[in-house]
Amino acid sequence: MKQLVEIPLLAKDIGREVSAYLNTLTKPIGSLGRLETLAVELAEMTGSRFPVVAPPGVLVFAADHGVTEEGVSAYPKEVTAQMVLNFLSGGAAMNVFSRQIGALFEIVDVGVAEAVDGEGLIARNVRAGTRNFCQEDAMAEEEVIQALNVGKEEAAKMIENGAKCLIVGEMGIGNTTSASALLSVITGKNVKELIGPGTGLNSDQMTKKQSVIERAIEARKPDQNDPLDLLKKLGGLEIAAMAGAMLEAARNRIPIIVDGFICTVAALIANQFDNRASDYMIAGHHSTEPGHKTALEELGKQPLLDLEMRLGEGTGAALAFPIVEAATNMLCEMATFSEAGVSGKSER
Amino acid sequence: MKQLVEIPLLAKDIGREVSAYLNTLTKPIGSLGRLETLAVELAEMTGSRFPVVAPPGVLVFAADHGVTEEGVSAYPKEVTAQMVLNFLSGGAAMNVFSRQIGALFEIVDVGVAEAVDGEGLIARNVRAGTRNFCQEDAMAEEEVIQALNVGKEEAAKMIENGAKCLIVGEMGIGNTTSASALLSVITGKNVKELIGPGTGLNSDQMTKKQSVIERAIEARKPDQNDPLDLLKKLGGLEIAAMAGAMLEAARNRIPIIVDGFICTVAALIANQFDNRASDYMIAGHHSTEPGHKTALEELGKQPLLDLEMRLGEGTGAALAFPIVEAATNMLCEMATFSEAGVSGKSER
Repeated sequence: MKQLVEIPLLAKDIGREVSAYLNTLTKPIGSLGRLETLAVELAEMTGSRFPVVAPPGVLVFAADHGVTEEGVSAYPKEVTAQMVLNFLSGGAAMNVFSRQIGALFEIVDVGVAEAVDGEGLIARNVRAGTRNFCQEDAMAEEEVIQALNVGKEEAAKMIENGAKCLIVGEMGIGNTTSASALLSVITGKNVKELIGPGTGLNSDQMTKKQSVIERAIEARKPDQNDPLDLLKKLGGLEIAAMAGAMLEAARNRIPIIVDGFICTVAALIANQFDNRASDYMIAGHHSTEPGHKTALEELGKQPLLDLEMRLGEGTGAALAFPIVEAATNMLCEMATFSEAGVSGKSER
Repeated sequence: MKQLVEIPLLAKDIGREVSAYLNTLTKPIGSLGRLETLAVELAEMTGSRFPVVAPPGVLVFAADHGVTEEGVSAYPKEVTAQMVLNFLSGGAAMNVFSRQIGALFEIVDVGVAEAVDGEGLIARNVRAGTRNFCQEDAMAEEEVIQALNVGKEEAAKMIENGAKCLIVGEMGIGNTTSASALLSVITGKNVKELIGPGTGLNSDQMTKKQSVIERAIEARKPDQNDPLDLLKKLGGLEIAAMAGAMLEAARNRIPIIVDGFICTVAALIANQFDNRASDYMIAGHHSTEPGHKTALEELGKQPLLDLEMRLGEGTGAALAFPIVEAATNMLCEMATFSEAGVSGKSER
């Protein structure tokens, strides 16, 4: 996979120029806090002194998880397909927030178990959901590569259509189980510290979820440094596609706004394929899913928002987009002290 | 002043309806976190099951502070007037963020020391800056009432022009000194715990700022429960106008997004005039100005954003607006489980 992506170095020189320019704008130095840091980061990513992030492109990848057979999810598996239809008719939370931020939007079936169809669906089903990774590998290596390529190709299309930054979201009943398993192996942390109620488990169900993941890791023995092995053994198809999409965005110097728990785990996987990937990532929000904090730390990113959300779909990243856009607008539109004829700080 | 405002009770019944409705939308219950709380609060404020907050109205009040004579600010006093011109030509940070959120925008001279003029300026100068409150009262009680009325009247105009929520900002060199003094008296906390570098003081200047405020409080002896006395003795004209604007918005059931330190102190003053005012307030962000945490606690509000900002002007509130709008869009546009044909939570 290393050969599939060639992620450019950050344009640190442009970042330094922007950093100096920020201090000429009509505001006390540093007073716009993280907006200023963001502006420098976006300049380094895009290689532009006046980076542009609008319109954002939103890709939601949907897939099922065989491990739902074990009873690890509060919602029945068929909800994945039903929610795909909801996405197609524009009624899901992520549709609403994508419209609000003027995003290009696509929903991609990369592995829904039931046959789904509808106008606008990007049909790239690799397999009808993963296998139950408690019993056997989630998928074949070839299927992992296909799913990664789906992500890569759909991101490439999105960028070609004009997206200036990328948000990847997911829909997949059971995917917090898969993501928690991946994160436990990657970080070596106990499953118990990482898992949460997902879409709404009670404490008995949580204990079961923990046990399912622990047994699966024990049985599958995935290599913590091999992203192909991790995805093959623990899934999922949408996580692979998200990682592929992020790698493609990074290759194109397109800033990525990372969403919640599942997306951050996918980001870690992307980073295993090429450790420059995270240079192009901004953490959108901090989710209440317990493992998210660990995942963000592992990625080395501080989130922009903390709104006690845990929906997924890309919603936290979409809500963070206006802040990222504000950083670019600040750079492009604010007057400098000399342009505005405003006196600088007193020298006393 | 109590007679000037009659703030209606929150529509708790509508809030309960919205709370129940939220649980029918296609998302795990509670998974949109603070967006859900916000939706209920907005419904209670507006009395509408589908509250609308766009377009927002932004009022920036500019005024000078006589206490700058004591050397409490990093920037020279003339910056207030210079920045008013910058606002008029659209180059200030708050212009940029107001445009981004599609806000109605006005800049109001309620007490700039130098004569300023320019197309679009709302000229409501009550006096040419406050007096140095270290030496004498900042202004006369009649001037306080005039400044409150400027805020009230400009907010009324903004609402008549279609603003569905209100953001008040300020521009006034020296106003963190005035606001810190007010907050110290209101909360009884030590000045030292509340003050910060403002627009960029060093530690010697900070010590001076502290001493100036302590001497002023000692000399003026303002009544901590009397907002007229507080404003008269400690200023400022823009803080009074902000409080007046917030009272008018609350009277009209118009949600208020509170900005940073100065604005939150103005909100506390508004709440002293009528303790229902804060029912209509949402805290936009947490500023790095040390006293802001205390001010937010006193107001009883948890901020939406924490982006390490300390610019003022209303910028933190403007950046929070898209989150408030997202809460209303969620309510208006998301499909319910039954509309979308999505299965509910499994009963196990």
